[in-house]
Amino acid sequence: MAVNLATPNPAELLPVKGVRLGVTEAGIRKANRRDLTVIELSEGSRVAGVFTQNRFCAAPVQVCRQHLAGGAIRALLINTGVANAGTGEPGLAAANACCAALASAMGLDAGQVLPFSTGVILEPLPVDRLVAGLPAAVADLRADGWFDAAHAIMTTDTLAKAVSRQVRIGERTVTLTGISKGAGMIKPNMATMLGFLACDAAIAQDLLDDLVREAADLSFNSITVDGDTSTNDSFILIATGGAGNAEIAAADSEDYRALRAAVIEVAVGLAQAIVRDGEGATKFMTIAVEGGRDREECRKVGYAVAHSPLVKTAFFASDPNLGRILAAIGYAGIDDLDVAKLRVWLGNPDESVLVAEHGGRAASYLEEAGSRIMKHAELTVRIALARGDAAATVWTCDFSYDYVKINADYRS
Amino acid sequence: MAVNLATPNPAELLPVKGVRLGVTEAGIRKANRRDLTVIELSEGSRVAGVFTQNRFCAAPVQVCRQHLAGGAIRALLINTGVANAGTGEPGLAAANACCAALASAMGLDAGQVLPFSTGVILEPLPVDRLVAGLPAAVADLRADGWFDAAHAIMTTDTLAKAVSRQVRIGERTVTLTGISKGAGMIKPNMATMLGFLACDAAIAQDLLDDLVREAADLSFNSITVDGDTSTNDSFILIATGGAGNAEIAAADSEDYRALRAAVIEVAVGLAQAIVRDGEGATKFMTIAVEGGRDREECRKVGYAVAHSPLVKTAFFASDPNLGRILAAIGYAGIDDLDVAKLRVWLGNPDESVLVAEHGGRAASYLEEAGSRIMKHAELTVRIALARGDAAATVWTCDFSYDYVKINADYRS
Repeated sequence: MAVNLATPNPAELLPVKGVRLGVTEAGIRKANRRDLTVIELSEGSRVAGVFTQNRFCAAPVQVCRQHLAGGAIRALLINTGVANAGTGEPGLAAANACCAALASAMGLDAGQVLPFSTGVILEPLPVDRLVAGLPAAVADLRADGWFDAAHAIMTTDTLAKAVSRQVRIGERTVTLTGISKGAGMIKPNMATMLGFLACDAAIAQDLLDDLVREAADLSFNSITVDGDTSTNDSFILIATGGAGNAEIAAADSEDYRALRAAVIEVAVGLAQAIVRDGEGATKFMTIAVEGGRDREECRKVGYAVAHSPLVKTAFFASDPNLGRILAAIGYAGIDDLDVAKLRVWLGNPDESVLVAEHGGRAASYLEEAGSRIMKHAELTVRIALARGDAAATVWTCDFSYDYVKINADYRS
Repeated sequence: MAVNLATPNPAELLPVKGVRLGVTEAGIRKANRRDLTVIELSEGSRVAGVFTQNRFCAAPVQVCRQHLAGGAIRALLINTGVANAGTGEPGLAAANACCAALASAMGLDAGQVLPFSTGVILEPLPVDRLVAGLPAAVADLRADGWFDAAHAIMTTDTLAKAVSRQVRIGERTVTLTGISKGAGMIKPNMATMLGFLACDAAIAQDLLDDLVREAADLSFNSITVDGDTSTNDSFILIATGGAGNAEIAAADSEDYRALRAAVIEVAVGLAQAIVRDGEGATKFMTIAVEGGRDREECRKVGYAVAHSPLVKTAFFASDPNLGRILAAIGYAGIDDLDVAKLRVWLGNPDESVLVAEHGGRAASYLEEAGSRIMKHAELTVRIALARGDAAATVWTCDFSYDYVKINADYRS
């Protein structure tokens, strides 16, 4: 049961000049489901990416890093069903073989293909079935393929995730469309968050590299479902240049600021969609931390609250359990935090109340106000540290019976 | 449902010379339950303690630190029902008032009393009811009070936890008895792990201070139920000197080694009992990490596995889900970990099998062996990092429907 999330409207997913997408059923793990996606990029497209920090990073992640360093990326190849992670040297060979096969079908070099896999860990990638599916996926390439691609990259997601925006850059309209899938480590061994965001702006490579990191930091790296970092997480930002704007070359330009804001908005929308569709989620929680000395300590506090099973189960129960929130703030690892200066508010889109100050419950706080607020499905915990000017926001969902049920189901 | 844990046998809880314990019903939060414990120590007893690192540490923890610095501790005062945490200056005044009242009843100075509270956070301590209960608790003081005290310090624990041992020190028999209660942040706002371990050895204060830290590190600081660090956690080590041994004054003496081993054995037993009685626990898991460069990185890996909700739900389901274990090792934060050298074994008291090596599943591993091993309630994950000689062990329990149920119940 996703929290305030619906299937994207296909009519609202805008084609991006220079990008075509095709999908097919390759039977990689299960029959009768679209499990293979090809994204074709026009010549001159620029691509930047950020990847999982997990030391058990999957073979396709290692290949992506190599190929991105070479530049001139022209195609993305995404399969579900098998993650090709924990597969050692044979896994690398499999990922490279798939890139080579797609390159051959499209008249490219293997190094111009980025591979992505999501699904079961520790199982070998069925290269033969994947390669056999490539002609159908290539034949399916079309500019309006975003809706189908958003579905074909799903694993245990209950809804497809896609967002489009348009922004004026100079005299041109730039279009951005992105798709994403499943947060955290998903149902039995299904791994991976994947995010793909394409725009048709022209932008210098170094700015694109900066932007993908900043956007990831403010979106996919600011969410958590269960605190588990997968082996395959990848976020790719593409700029085809098809919009015909003058190339954005300076970080302090108005054009860069406009594109940056649009990219971050789409990335945040895609990331929040993953949390809204988190396993067993019934509440969407925003943990907004302000007044920190730096962003890092604000993130520490936000993640301590967002990861606490006790806070998450209390939100599932609509219990305004302040003690658990305060305790999580207290163990977030800020050694010199003065809890007497701390203030905490609990809110939903309709109202917000101060719940804690002076090291304990706020004198003005009434439990009935907290209970009323908690009944909403969209909740905000705002935490003022009173130590500086930095801020950070983390999004998460609650922890329900269904989370345990989904994750305790045996894999078969 | 505790995992392989039973109520202690009162006959096996040995009195410790110089220690008397008394309990009573003070009605601190609920009627008809023993909720107040006094532990009297003979003159000359030495006391050392370690406390929660949570910045929202409770008022009694702050008072304990002050009084311990003054030395000459003669009494411990423990209440359940209200944690006196998140209570600001009035909370400190309440804790001090209780110390003063007990000191007055026992002919001591207030600074010779250590206070401990466990229960609801953010509620004021009912000092009047607590003080009114003191005469009955003092009148109840007796050397064989350990069994009753183990029960009176319980909150949501389903079973009392107590361990006794004897050890020869020189020509004397030294007796150690300890009690503990509830791990992590417990059922609705109930906080606190408490551990009290008394022995009648004579030992120098500086060695006792070292020993309490080392024993806590190897026991209470090596367990986790849900990763939440409470506001009140305290572990106290007492040495009365009543056994009449020559005072232990050197860390490299045989006497110190003998006492150290016994103290650690009792502390580990008390800590493991807390995990066995973890909320909703159905499995007791030992995460043994070896071959690390230092103990700290071994602990990081152990806690990453022990905290992963995905690993814990898989163990609940008796699912030998290697991918989740490997992924948790991968994100434990060891930047230069070579996963190709890593080896992982899964075991129970009857058998152990190599499940992962060379960056993936071991060739010799059969899923049926993993499934057979996982049916046991006592499970070990052994992880060899192949980077050095350090090791660390972490104990935890699985994550079940009942954990969510217990923690999602409203506080009333």
